Amino acid sequence: MNQQIILKNRPKAKPSEKDFEIQEIEEEKDGKLSLKTKYISVDPYLRGRMRDEESYIEPFKIGKPIDSMLVSEVMASDLPDFSKGDHVVGMLAWKKQQAHTGNNLRKIDKNLAPLSAYLGILGLTGLTAYLALEKIGKLQEGETLLVSGAAGAVGSVVGQIGKIKGCRVVGIAGSDEKIEHIQEKFGFDTGINYKTTENMQQAISEKCPDGVDVYFDNVGGEILDATLQNINKDARIINCGAISIYNSTETPTGPRPEGILIKKSALMQGFLVRDHVDDYQKAISQLAEWLKSGKLKYDETIVEGFEKTPKAFIDLFDGKNMGKMLVKV
Amino acid sequence: MNQQIILKNRPKAKPSEKDFEIQEIEEEKDGKLSLKTKYISVDPYLRGRMRDEESYIEPFKIGKPIDSMLVSEVMASDLPDFSKGDHVVGMLAWKKQQAHTGNNLRKIDKNLAPLSAYLGILGLTGLTAYLALEKIGKLQEGETLLVSGAAGAVGSVVGQIGKIKGCRVVGIAGSDEKIEHIQEKFGFDTGINYKTTENMQQAISEKCPDGVDVYFDNVGGEILDATLQNINKDARIINCGAISIYNSTETPTGPRPEGILIKKSALMQGFLVRDHVDDYQKAISQLAEWLKSGKLKYDETIVEGFEKTPKAFIDLFDGKNMGKMLVKV
Repeated sequence: MNQQIILKNRPKAKPSEKDFEIQEIEEEKDGKLSLKTKYISVDPYLRGRMRDEESYIEPFKIGKPIDSMLVSEVMASDLPDFSKGDHVVGMLAWKKQQAHTGNNLRKIDKNLAPLSAYLGILGLTGLTAYLALEKIGKLQEGETLLVSGAAGAVGSVVGQIGKIKGCRVVGIAGSDEKIEHIQEKFGFDTGINYKTTENMQQAISEKCPDGVDVYFDNVGGEILDATLQNINKDARIINCGAISIYNSTETPTGPRPEGILIKKSALMQGFLVRDHVDDYQKAISQLAEWLKSGKLKYDETIVEGFEKTPKAFIDLFDGKNMGKMLVKV
Repeated sequence: MNQQIILKNRPKAKPSEKDFEIQEIEEEKDGKLSLKTKYISVDPYLRGRMRDEESYIEPFKIGKPIDSMLVSEVMASDLPDFSKGDHVVGMLAWKKQQAHTGNNLRKIDKNLAPLSAYLGILGLTGLTAYLALEKIGKLQEGETLLVSGAAGAVGSVVGQIGKIKGCRVVGIAGSDEKIEHIQEKFGFDTGINYKTTENMQQAISEKCPDGVDVYFDNVGGEILDATLQNINKDARIINCGAISIYNSTETPTGPRPEGILIKKSALMQGFLVRDHVDDYQKAISQLAEWLKSGKLKYDETIVEGFEKTPKAFIDLFDGKNMGKMLVKV
């Protein structure tokens, strides 16, 4: 039998397992490809797509399967470009097996990197880190780069690229173990455990004595507020994620940024990796080169079992992952 | 006798005349030029420079004269580049007469445009409008440009440049007269009187049926919040001024923008015209050309009398000016 995971209810605040349902379904046969799921990517941005239909890009529908980036194996193909045994990556439904047209799938090479890497450092997370820094961050040697969610999938790549570019890199994460880890494994210069820090504004000031030139923000909220008090002239703030406010039930409020932005001629810009599809191939080549030469490392938290997918997604909001969170099916 | 105007106290909230003092002083003689003040520019951004010394760029000192852009006449010169009877524009002290080194003064031609225009449309206000649109706004034909403070010195130029570039231009101002005026004199397509509008978010949605592509913000605060609810994908928000919060005594708070910025891949960027000195000459040439060909019009509110300068500055915060506020000495 085949299985799928549907969105049962729109989560009110933090998602719970009751918002999802695992259903038994028939094997799908009406496509040109038959795909068997190997790895499922669970990502914080999926929370946004669980909101009201009108309010978000490509919202999920109640009663329909969730989709995200998956790595699948081709079990059968009527298409000349795909053969049985090939591996592909693409936006696919949370199903153990699915039929597919072959459109918007990309073949991947498991000899170049492990299959799971194509959902992380060579997938949307690596692309997000690389392209947001290219398009908005515009890092200059000697600048200070501050990264929140620094031990996460995107943040850990951001920090390593910062070091490749010759910046001072400071990471914010939620445990002393994570702070130690990002310094030892990823080469961050230093870090701040926001859970044990009373005054973030002061901590950032101490760890970034020359001020913050680029802030790569994965969390939003109060850490963003504290950072704004420490930015330099012409600072660039990349609004890549706002995990701290995704589960808010009321409109989150905070200090207004416009006065500081004016005073510092600073920039805050939202980044969605999907806006930059034309740049993916070039970015993946650069990331793969750095990966091969050992300049980039990565973490994965791999949960085993298709039925654990909702739980793995929910655990993202408690920071239970180290690096990219994946489900192995 | 000569006179100067000093900052007596840092204003707590809205500035009052008691924060300034007019003092009798000697004629200044120890410079290469002797300058007689003709026009004084009063601008909202000066409010920022009246704050605590550390918190703002070039803060004013208590007991010392204010400075802003002035047009002066050369009364005597020891310099080859300046002759008696020349007119100059530059950052000068609020004094009826002052000695000067000649550094950072620009000679102006009163036959090309009236002297007062060099403090407005051919001065920092025109430069601010033009360069902020060039550097951040990047207007495309057919886009919708929303402008707050639309009847003000900067806003009215912004709107006219929007029309030159083929945009739909919507202005926000504080009276029906101002709205009528920006449509009739400056060619805005339509406008919103924020003082009589209960629901700004809805009003913006109605007046900008295709959404807002570029928002030129002179006011900050709740009008910015309402605009953020109406921005299009890839919108550009120019944070040029925040007059609505300049007089706040506590940190102003509001809805957090980071979620919307991410959803719309939108950008908010602070703009300070002084960051772009290298582009002034080219911009003034373009503005002068448009002015000559009748594509640009401007308003001035000219207050007569040196001693009225503090009052003219304070009146800016009640919107008593139409266009550029100037003092004629």
